[in-house]
Amino acid sequence: MSESLVQRPAPSLLHLDASADANSVSKRLTTVFADSWRNAHGAAGYRHRDLSADPVPLVGPAYVALGTRVERHGVIPASRVAALIEDPAEEREWVLTRSLIAEVLDADVLLLGVPMYNLSVPATLKAWIDRVTFPGMFIDPDTGDHLLRDTRVVVVMARGGGYGPGAPRAGLDFQTPYLRAYFLGLGVAEENLHFVAAELTRAGDIPALAGFQEMAAESLTAAREAVTALAARLAEPSVVTS
Amino acid sequence: MSESLVQRPAPSLLHLDASADANSVSKRLTTVFADSWRNAHGAAGYRHRDLSADPVPLVGPAYVALGTRVERHGVIPASRVAALIEDPAEEREWVLTRSLIAEVLDADVLLLGVPMYNLSVPATLKAWIDRVTFPGMFIDPDTGDHLLRDTRVVVVMARGGGYGPGAPRAGLDFQTPYLRAYFLGLGVAEENLHFVAAELTRAGDIPALAGFQEMAAESLTAAREAVTALAARLAEPSVVTS
Repeated sequence: MSESLVQRPAPSLLHLDASADANSVSKRLTTVFADSWRNAHGAAGYRHRDLSADPVPLVGPAYVALGTRVERHGVIPASRVAALIEDPAEEREWVLTRSLIAEVLDADVLLLGVPMYNLSVPATLKAWIDRVTFPGMFIDPDTGDHLLRDTRVVVVMARGGGYGPGAPRAGLDFQTPYLRAYFLGLGVAEENLHFVAAELTRAGDIPALAGFQEMAAESLTAAREAVTALAARLAEPSVVTS
Repeated sequence: MSESLVQRPAPSLLHLDASADANSVSKRLTTVFADSWRNAHGAAGYRHRDLSADPVPLVGPAYVALGTRVERHGVIPASRVAALIEDPAEEREWVLTRSLIAEVLDADVLLLGVPMYNLSVPATLKAWIDRVTFPGMFIDPDTGDHLLRDTRVVVVMARGGGYGPGAPRAGLDFQTPYLRAYFLGLGVAEENLHFVAAELTRAGDIPALAGFQEMAAESLTAAREAVTALAARLAEPSVVTS
């Protein structure tokens, strides 16, 4: 086995924001990452989706019908899905879906800005997840390999309260463990999953959290540093062992 | 303290379905419950929302702005929210929201049909949760009491695979523990929370699950029996201690 260094010409970043907040903390933090990325690589491989301003449509009955039919065949390539479509509603669903899947497969890095809404991810992000997770699309039908194994996933979270390790509400965090389980299930390698959280971001708004404003500021600073460090690390030229 | 038996004249059921599937198992099971309820009580107090056919709009920036402004005042009654509205976009968000909140407050029983989508609840249900959970609306601003303490919540779930206690994928269930934490956080009493799950509902569609079809059929039968028993139990005349 020979080993060579291959520098990819245009690494790509798919940047998704899920917040509906005009003053979103998670969006400010993903912007730090995205700016750093574009400084290093230019804008060519950069793609941004604001899932709140431009929501992914909820899946409908035709999506479920097509997905179920596809699933009966085991794992098939995206190119064979069209042949299984039975009506115009399924065709519309597939057109909406396949381009979102292609975006994910094309990305070297997937960056998600995710506020905590009601202990979990916002409906905007879940709508994207429910659509993009079409049966078998992230598995190589010939080898069974996970196509996203080498994709780096950076999840930048903002939570109004404190949900970090040791916090009294840590057990109520259905955001971090959920997204970890989801992306691992999608085939992303554990070492390629990165989570950053700004905690207590509503300390300035909620009277009961007023005593936590200093802690919130420290958490935000730490999150910004972590995002900056991750951007620098993941912006290094990819090293591919072949 | 005197004790008297009061039979409410028209108990009310709010029935939400979140599935996008035309052959939905969760919808078939909630229909069993709803039919039994209407047999006992008539249709007067029955309200049905299909969150897939008629989705709750995703919350936008004006919802977040209004909610944040309300939250700065601590807990206020719904009647005082209108006075805090600053522009037509916030007015639109509040009009969409207050009627959904009123529906929940009016319900004696809340029935949810919830398929598992990608390990968690569908985006349709999360959109309802994200909108209805407006700051302070389920707390009595005078006493601090939880307004939903006596509301009975019945969650009827369908999962394509096996996620029940003891199943290899039990740790990947972000549906049951999430909804439990959410409704407890909303103030529903633990003893009023009921969960029923039909497992392995996709055993007939997914080749890898073909060996589980008998188990799936048993699970569906058990779920139907559990739903029927719950409907009978919760349809008994309410006993109020005063």
